[in-house]
Amino acid sequence: MTTRRPIDDPLNAFCAHATAYLSGAAAGPLAGLRFAAKDLFDIVGHVTGAGNPDWLATHAPAVRTAPVVQILVDSGADMVGKTHTDELSRGILGENVHYGTPTNPNARGHVPGGSSSGSAAAVAGGLVDFALGTDTGGSVRIPASFCGIYGMRPSHGRLSLAGVVGQAPSFDTIGWFTRDAGLLARIGEILLGVDLRHAPRPHHLVIASDAFAIAEPATKAALTPAVEALTALVDSSENCPVSQTVPLSEWTAHQRAIQGREAWNTFGEWIDQTNPRLAFDIADNFIRGKQVSDAALVAAREFQAARRVELLRMFAEDTVLCLPTAPFPAPTIGQPRSTMWTQRNAISTLTTISATAGAPQVSLPLGAVDGLPVGLSILGRPGADDTVLALARALAR
Amino acid sequence: MTTRRPIDDPLNAFCAHATAYLSGAAAGPLAGLRFAAKDLFDIVGHVTGAGNPDWLATHAPAVRTAPVVQILVDSGADMVGKTHTDELSRGILGENVHYGTPTNPNARGHVPGGSSSGSAAAVAGGLVDFALGTDTGGSVRIPASFCGIYGMRPSHGRLSLAGVVGQAPSFDTIGWFTRDAGLLARIGEILLGVDLRHAPRPHHLVIASDAFAIAEPATKAALTPAVEALTALVDSSENCPVSQTVPLSEWTAHQRAIQGREAWNTFGEWIDQTNPRLAFDIADNFIRGKQVSDAALVAAREFQAARRVELLRMFAEDTVLCLPTAPFPAPTIGQPRSTMWTQRNAISTLTTISATAGAPQVSLPLGAVDGLPVGLSILGRPGADDTVLALARALAR
Repeated sequence: MTTRRPIDDPLNAFCAHATAYLSGAAAGPLAGLRFAAKDLFDIVGHVTGAGNPDWLATHAPAVRTAPVVQILVDSGADMVGKTHTDELSRGILGENVHYGTPTNPNARGHVPGGSSSGSAAAVAGGLVDFALGTDTGGSVRIPASFCGIYGMRPSHGRLSLAGVVGQAPSFDTIGWFTRDAGLLARIGEILLGVDLRHAPRPHHLVIASDAFAIAEPATKAALTPAVEALTALVDSSENCPVSQTVPLSEWTAHQRAIQGREAWNTFGEWIDQTNPRLAFDIADNFIRGKQVSDAALVAAREFQAARRVELLRMFAEDTVLCLPTAPFPAPTIGQPRSTMWTQRNAISTLTTISATAGAPQVSLPLGAVDGLPVGLSILGRPGADDTVLALARALAR
Repeated sequence: MTTRRPIDDPLNAFCAHATAYLSGAAAGPLAGLRFAAKDLFDIVGHVTGAGNPDWLATHAPAVRTAPVVQILVDSGADMVGKTHTDELSRGILGENVHYGTPTNPNARGHVPGGSSSGSAAAVAGGLVDFALGTDTGGSVRIPASFCGIYGMRPSHGRLSLAGVVGQAPSFDTIGWFTRDAGLLARIGEILLGVDLRHAPRPHHLVIASDAFAIAEPATKAALTPAVEALTALVDSSENCPVSQTVPLSEWTAHQRAIQGREAWNTFGEWIDQTNPRLAFDIADNFIRGKQVSDAALVAAREFQAARRVELLRMFAEDTVLCLPTAPFPAPTIGQPRSTMWTQRNAISTLTTISATAGAPQVSLPLGAVDGLPVGLSILGRPGADDTVLALARALAR
């Protein structure tokens, strides 16, 4: 039986309304470790708040704990609290107008990234050993990059979303953060049910030239040594664009159409009934999603399907891809909405690749620009979660 | 020197953040009376909150008191507090998701109407003798009707909007509420600088048949005795539609286009900079306004100008018009957003008439449906504020 230790949270990472605590099993591979879960994960007896006070006020306490949380507790880890999220998971910077912005301990004055903002801050600041987040359009990968920690987005569909507030089913995934690649891999073994000793080793590396071209020059330069080290771990590598026919800049509009429309499907009825308080940009985003026509939705799905075919064709079984997780380090807090929109668009030009492919992606904190972390990502074929985790661990060594 | 008496506010009519108080001049026509001002009016030393906590947080205290408030204080009335408004004055029902809904003392469980919700509730509940509001698209007339009190919207441009948070300059007006027609008229004399003993007497009454046809049958029936009493005060009357060429139901879309676009002009820059918390329906409404094209705006202005010409042609100098203030009594609190939208649309089909014409309109609490107040309105030509106030006073006797 673990003794409950209160969280001292100078980072505004944890939700005040959900002081949930689940003691880990006495014995288990994660015994002695502490973790947190984004406030989208159900914890029995607590209301899941989803980053919006009116969501919190209009929902009942969860009647069971999300299975993915339970697996970790059963493996010995203590669940010590729930962490802030961007409002209804619909943000990428980590600023929540209701609950404030979690502190980025590795880039003070800069956003932590979102929407799994509190989980990333709590891990980066050492408040917990690891944390759960969700990633629909980059919500684990971006805060991992901005906060200088490891973040894993598994293959789409690989982990159960039961007991988790979803957003856009075509892209929703559960992910996790750690400060080291070993623990990132260990949690993957537990959650995914794999043994990384048997993970297929990739032979070929595609360095995504178009993705690197989108990154700011300083970010690209900061990641170059890590790319070279990664190259040394595989038999062959090449510079090659991800986009075979249509530039990445065009991918995002289709991603946004599908994700926006699905997000309205998820939250629209509640919004209509509740008329909740929302940050203006969140409301604006919902309305854009609502306004996506049936024809535009069909066209976007066809576009994504075609891109996915191209991606899978490019990725042989033994191939992985590397790219910058984000085009730049964490922006400063409190940008005007127009700037936020531009930044968001640039970010999603890179994050859309794995969302489009349903592919696993690990972000590794292997660079810095003027002292601000930037992440390098390794992306594998859908299902090759073990390969990318094992490669990330090898690269980190 | 008046002693400051604290407001006991069981109605949630007053803003907790602005316990403003201005003692009235010792002698004056309003000496001994207490009034409140909607939280859009500047009071020196206090931040004007405008119904939104982020507006409150991002603005400095007012450096002077709005002239219209000062006139009343100089006339002897005590300004005892600031009252709740719909968020940024952009609502008609009186529900504010941040500060709650002021209680309608004459229709418990029903909305007070808005956006001058707290002012109407404070007057209806006897907390003050009179109160200031603003009326862009019905924000004095509708709460007057719903709360069973008198409400005056003067001719557009008649009172200075200095020191008042505006919304849509083409329609913004300052108005006031009372529990009796005598005080309504007296305040009109002071603010408008007129002497009602010399007010031109109207000879002809137009009973707006299309407006009454829009009202629910029970509301129409409840107002019939008042219409008959009004008829007895003039030499001649006729049933006649307001809309000569285009039905009233088409007027509202053009009103909404101009008002929405102007409201975005007023608040858009602040919204972009601040990314404030807004109720979803308020954000939605702003975005609709933002999306009004230049061509649609020009077309709407041309449409309104044509309607205004028709209205002025119909109104000879000696003519007034009567109509139901609202199509129904106050709806119950907490309707879903879709219902709110339908109700709002029906309401604005009637309120758009004076907004289109720039005409003065008084709402009188002269009917009830199942115990819920409904108002009868008298509308005059632009500039005939004295005529409608004098006629309202005569009718109330």
